[in-house]
Amino acid sequence: MAIPGLIIDVDSEVPVYRQIADGIQAATADGRLSRGDRLPPTRDLARSLQVNRNTVVAAYDLLAATGFVHGRTGRGTYLASEPAARDLPAPANAGTADGHGEEWFSAFSQTVDGPGVDRLLSAYQLATADEGISFAGSYPDRELLPAGVFLKSIKAAMKEEGAALLAYGPTAGYPALRNTLAEEMTRKGSEIRGSQILITNGAQQGLELVFRTFLDPGDTAIVEDPTYTGALSVLGSLRAKTVGVPMDEQGIRPDLLEAALIRHRPQLIYLQPTFQNPTTAVMPESRRREVLALAIRYGCPVVEDDWAGDLRFEGKEIPTLHALDHGRHVIYLGTFSKKLMPGVRVGWAAAPKEVFRRLVALKQISDCGTSPILQAGLQRYLAAGCLRPHLKRVRAEYRNRRDLMLESMSRYFPGKVRWTTPPGGLFLWVRLPKGLDSGELFVAARRKGVLFSRGDLFHVDGQGPGATGSNTLRLTYSSASPEQIDLGIRTLGDLIRSRWSESPHDGGEPLVEAVPIL
Amino acid sequence: MAIPGLIIDVDSEVPVYRQIADGIQAATADGRLSRGDRLPPTRDLARSLQVNRNTVVAAYDLLAATGFVHGRTGRGTYLASEPAARDLPAPANAGTADGHGEEWFSAFSQTVDGPGVDRLLSAYQLATADEGISFAGSYPDRELLPAGVFLKSIKAAMKEEGAALLAYGPTAGYPALRNTLAEEMTRKGSEIRGSQILITNGAQQGLELVFRTFLDPGDTAIVEDPTYTGALSVLGSLRAKTVGVPMDEQGIRPDLLEAALIRHRPQLIYLQPTFQNPTTAVMPESRRREVLALAIRYGCPVVEDDWAGDLRFEGKEIPTLHALDHGRHVIYLGTFSKKLMPGVRVGWAAAPKEVFRRLVALKQISDCGTSPILQAGLQRYLAAGCLRPHLKRVRAEYRNRRDLMLESMSRYFPGKVRWTTPPGGLFLWVRLPKGLDSGELFVAARRKGVLFSRGDLFHVDGQGPGATGSNTLRLTYSSASPEQIDLGIRTLGDLIRSRWSESPHDGGEPLVEAVPIL
Repeated sequence: MAIPGLIIDVDSEVPVYRQIADGIQAATADGRLSRGDRLPPTRDLARSLQVNRNTVVAAYDLLAATGFVHGRTGRGTYLASEPAARDLPAPANAGTADGHGEEWFSAFSQTVDGPGVDRLLSAYQLATADEGISFAGSYPDRELLPAGVFLKSIKAAMKEEGAALLAYGPTAGYPALRNTLAEEMTRKGSEIRGSQILITNGAQQGLELVFRTFLDPGDTAIVEDPTYTGALSVLGSLRAKTVGVPMDEQGIRPDLLEAALIRHRPQLIYLQPTFQNPTTAVMPESRRREVLALAIRYGCPVVEDDWAGDLRFEGKEIPTLHALDHGRHVIYLGTFSKKLMPGVRVGWAAAPKEVFRRLVALKQISDCGTSPILQAGLQRYLAAGCLRPHLKRVRAEYRNRRDLMLESMSRYFPGKVRWTTPPGGLFLWVRLPKGLDSGELFVAARRKGVLFSRGDLFHVDGQGPGATGSNTLRLTYSSASPEQIDLGIRTLGDLIRSRWSESPHDGGEPLVEAVPIL
Repeated sequence: MAIPGLIIDVDSEVPVYRQIADGIQAATADGRLSRGDRLPPTRDLARSLQVNRNTVVAAYDLLAATGFVHGRTGRGTYLASEPAARDLPAPANAGTADGHGEEWFSAFSQTVDGPGVDRLLSAYQLATADEGISFAGSYPDRELLPAGVFLKSIKAAMKEEGAALLAYGPTAGYPALRNTLAEEMTRKGSEIRGSQILITNGAQQGLELVFRTFLDPGDTAIVEDPTYTGALSVLGSLRAKTVGVPMDEQGIRPDLLEAALIRHRPQLIYLQPTFQNPTTAVMPESRRREVLALAIRYGCPVVEDDWAGDLRFEGKEIPTLHALDHGRHVIYLGTFSKKLMPGVRVGWAAAPKEVFRRLVALKQISDCGTSPILQAGLQRYLAAGCLRPHLKRVRAEYRNRRDLMLESMSRYFPGKVRWTTPPGGLFLWVRLPKGLDSGELFVAARRKGVLFSRGDLFHVDGQGPGATGSNTLRLTYSSASPEQIDLGIRTLGDLIRSRWSESPHDGGEPLVEAVPIL
């Protein structure tokens, strides 16, 4: 059984199955076949055309895909009585040059084009820009990074374990390092075992894995407002609803948190209880207990980002939420990026077992685990007791730089600018008189070779002039030298004074918030 | 203006705003207030109770959140005329021990609980299990990992650049390494620049970032069926619709691919043109051109996973899809995990600019970039010309092991078992006579100390007895010693013979597929 007039050209560049499909369409168009006709069984047509039966099957499949034929299971294939839903595209030619440029890619996911997804990248590019005096970013001074000692640690690890470190390691991390971290957390009051510690590529990966573990598109996360840009970017990529809860000088406000918990039924609360980024607020223990009790009551997991752990240089350590909670409702994120070095790209997540199990599965599909080489090097560094003297040194240095910055600000900034005096961490938070825009100041300062982080970029409701926090900025003291701090703050002070004198609000309405500034 | 009978206890553990909210509810319950009543303005009630006005605002907010009061903007707050939508929960007490265990966490995302998300983790745990003779996994033999030379490379990099490598690096990667990779790809016929190369933590991260760049939940990806487990797991986490297209001995079937492109309008096609995992199929250049032309015609980006690049030990190299395409519609994924060492956790994605830009934003929020230490070490290793002799050595070794495995299989396997003879890569693909289940064989073999990868786990439609591919298995020769190969294959052969004799299909129906086995 054949199709009238259908001939196969075996020398054609058009594949045979396409020739058959095209031939059937042509035969239908010129009346050799009629709509509703039954096509020959694949076996018969294959025999008559002297082709493989699968080739005919492929042709029928293709026609079925466009709606040109239907009903292929068992009882034969029929030409549709209606015109085909879609045209069969022209047959593909190998190596066609199609002339399309970049615009060929048109459909990206909402994940990658989600709101604020590239905010962290912009902030990071600014933070790592090698220009002028930088108070942007939040990272250790390069001069303070222990390059020599760390190289020795890597050498020791490689000499001891050799090729084993060059192989795939356990997904959750290098066991000795996981145990060391659990011991250190236990020393600080947490109930945690190494088996609940997941090694991540810095806290950023921990944060992303945890958020992805709890949030589907449309789910809600509660955050302090303002908060870490990287958290906002991840939430944007997940198309989560981000509810910012205002803070006071003790951190997130429990009354507003409770109202938000009732109203929004969030899937998680993301908090930085110590040296909150960017406000530097520290939650006292009583506030921590209050917030924790609310989270438990409303059944909402807490993600505690302790990025500045071990960077307190005065005052008493306050127990982490994880410690106060006995590790039952809190997922804790730690990192070596700030207290030791960013380049090692090692952080960790400590989580209850049900959560941990899922985090490991996500870590696996994300990158099959962090490099054993760096983990083993870090473990040797810690085991050799190198962290304690390092922390002693950097804390003293950061305190000096903070004091220098405070001193310079008192000297150069107009009286109505307000700022925090954080007892630890890497930066402080500044509020300009109302009417002054830190975005404008940013542009002017950059021209004069001084960088800082604009406050609006940390706020949930976005960026730009007039946005919440557009009169705030974050100034990092940890990575600038004493001379740079003096010169940079003087430059900023001059600019603020000159802007202030231009400000339409000058003299009129109150220019400052109540002190404390939060 | 006050509320009758409302008294504040400043010594109570219950926060004042909660006392006010509770008091208003109590007053409504016992008739001191009536539904529909207007509550006192916050200013007035604050004055009468001698509390901060914000405290009253918080109380009203809380009541509004439950639907107990309404209409707070400007014109006063009224008790709702209907009962509240939700009860106001009992006030939170600090540090409450709640007795909840693990089951407290109940709501995880569909991402992490998506279909097959933990499939890669299971496969990986098996692959990295340190037991018996392992033909599972797909990675280099530890004996072949260049531990000494790589340590020297890291030392050279650290000595030259010092603390700079311990700081944050550029998100897209270490510039010299990106350029080296672009040059190497250019040498192989690609049009690519270093500025289009993103360094990732192995190809797994590249794959995840690319998939997340194109796929929203419900979107469709076309894959070869069977395919890499890690791709299936990522697609499950994204809740993408995964359409598996059958293969023949030249890779994915273009006729079925075209039908799938028409029917499913996918967002991407994921392919491994060379030494496809798990089938070891190699697409000839003509098939590559054909597939590429289809992808271009239907406007569907191609993700080319070239995980086994540089691991061909016989026959002629075939240009990558990326090279044939001039890098315009193909996103290329490469890795050092297989040809050099997994532990360095360095792979890369090469992408057209519009795609690249988005990949970098996702990389940023995923982990702020791969460690500069390892990238710089790898760059020194490559610049010193160490890769070429390494590849020469491992290719010779893998060819020997492949030959040994083929020889052992010929000797020990029943005649009706079929397998591939791959001209490169790390493993081969085996099909058992029909009726034999590789899952059962797996259990029996593990008891005898021999591991392999079950074929069903690579199939789109899942796993278990009776699933597609349940009579297939993947045997890795790269990581076992000659003695292990002989003993392990003999063990498997004995088991297959004994199972076969038990098989109900024995003697009856045809036991094998047509040759070639794909």
